[in-house]
Amino acid sequence: MPALVESDAKEAALLRAAQEEVALGIDRLFDQWLALPADPRGRLYQAMRHAAIGGGKRLRPLLVRAAGDLFHVDCALSLRAGAAVEAMHVYSLIHDDLPCMDDDDMRRGKPTVHRAFDEATAVLAGDSLHALAFEWLVDPATHTDPFVRSELVRELARAAGPAGMAGGQMMDLAAETADFDLPTVTRLQQLKTGALIGFSVEAGAILARIPAEGRGPLRAYARDIGLAFQIADDILDVEGDEAVAGKALHKDDAAGKATFVTLMGIARAREQAAALVDQAIGHLAAFGEEAALLRAIARYVVERDR
Amino acid sequence: MPALVESDAKEAALLRAAQEEVALGIDRLFDQWLALPADPRGRLYQAMRHAAIGGGKRLRPLLVRAAGDLFHVDCALSLRAGAAVEAMHVYSLIHDDLPCMDDDDMRRGKPTVHRAFDEATAVLAGDSLHALAFEWLVDPATHTDPFVRSELVRELARAAGPAGMAGGQMMDLAAETADFDLPTVTRLQQLKTGALIGFSVEAGAILARIPAEGRGPLRAYARDIGLAFQIADDILDVEGDEAVAGKALHKDDAAGKATFVTLMGIARAREQAAALVDQAIGHLAAFGEEAALLRAIARYVVERDR
Repeated sequence: MPALVESDAKEAALLRAAQEEVALGIDRLFDQWLALPADPRGRLYQAMRHAAIGGGKRLRPLLVRAAGDLFHVDCALSLRAGAAVEAMHVYSLIHDDLPCMDDDDMRRGKPTVHRAFDEATAVLAGDSLHALAFEWLVDPATHTDPFVRSELVRELARAAGPAGMAGGQMMDLAAETADFDLPTVTRLQQLKTGALIGFSVEAGAILARIPAEGRGPLRAYARDIGLAFQIADDILDVEGDEAVAGKALHKDDAAGKATFVTLMGIARAREQAAALVDQAIGHLAAFGEEAALLRAIARYVVERDR
Repeated sequence: MPALVESDAKEAALLRAAQEEVALGIDRLFDQWLALPADPRGRLYQAMRHAAIGGGKRLRPLLVRAAGDLFHVDCALSLRAGAAVEAMHVYSLIHDDLPCMDDDDMRRGKPTVHRAFDEATAVLAGDSLHALAFEWLVDPATHTDPFVRSELVRELARAAGPAGMAGGQMMDLAAETADFDLPTVTRLQQLKTGALIGFSVEAGAILARIPAEGRGPLRAYARDIGLAFQIADDILDVEGDEAVAGKALHKDDAAGKATFVTLMGIARAREQAAALVDQAIGHLAAFGEEAALLRAIARYVVERDR
């Protein structure tokens, strides 16, 4: 086997193993943290469990783990921080799927929370996971150093709020009626999906007490894969299989929304995504073998089928 | 003037002055922190400003300030922490008012956010204030000690999540169809409004680095005024003036919901609220003149007309 193919196969196996381990670990934590209470709040917890347990690519916790690996962060710590980011992500999916937002019926191959339960429960399940993400992140079990915990909270709050995910979703709603150009769509996606992906990567470094000045290459890596991820998402929205994706596709086109695909065409979008992956991997040059998982994730982000 | 009347008048003046100062300070911080961005997220910030600036009793920031005063906490710090709690409270009002929840048209004398804007914007404005509450709280300007900041985040996240405010709202929705008894209604209210009121009082002590063991009397005070506040709310829902309240009243009765008033009758409810206020003030016995504002707030909580 030629050296390059051999290293590719090794990287793919590494990714698969890490993905399985993280997915199992996240489900185990959610199962434990979202134990049903014996009172009228049971339905709220059932709704959170429905949305949070089983399914999803668990990309964000995988990124926390992979970035943590660079600095030999204890896996148990990066898994806890990863579960907090995933809770934040799941909350955003629940709210984005609401009838007043994207009005989606299926998510991760299951009915969305407002379809399986009801709208009020969906709003509250999202709100609850939002608060729990911070509660779990700031728990002394996530890190013994309170400075690390408060840094994690600050960065996560920024990534989730109006200058991050929530602001990006607001722009996305505006995109249905406005005529956004490429810089605006890029900015929209940097907020909507990029900010939380950026936090996930940076969290691994924060857990290792790497100061902000030392996180530059990781931030650059995250920016590139975040954008590549979204371009791949736009391509999947056109070319993907709904059964594999576990959600409705071809929605952007129907809504007349500007996307990377409508703005660049599918061929250029694909080239651009590949270029961003190469660039992302380039930012990892200073790291050695420890960056293998981050490199594998960068490739996976554009090759995935869901 | 007899001594007691004189001290009552002094206390009322103290309350009025603190209320005005806190209300001004909160509006100033929100105005600064929610400055309109020059991009398509403008509408999101307008919605947050509509809900957060001007109006409201500002009870929670007032409690942070009053509890902080006990331990000579710098007013600028307790105001910042108070603004974070108020942002959390405002987010909960925006979501509770949604059509799928309590479906309210008026709040604080203005149209609710989903009426003045739209439902999607209301969901995202609530989500944004939720994240901002944590971002503001954990900012080094709120406290230089990261342990204090992480404690504040932990307690606020607990008070807001499914074991606090969001869980209480879930029980409140269930109350429309279930037949709750007095202990269950008490528990519902302890979650729905009590938890955040409890956090507000405790935050003053956390800012002064008072350890959890030393916060017992304040927690007891908060529990009592939280319950008294809700009983007063239930009485206002029956006897209040909608123009003064700035929102729709007589809703519980229409929904056939069990409240303190339906379960105890209005006379006993009034007695119970008064007894809780006396009890709350009793918990402050160990403190001296510094507790004057907390005592005044306890009385105000049941005497208010909105």
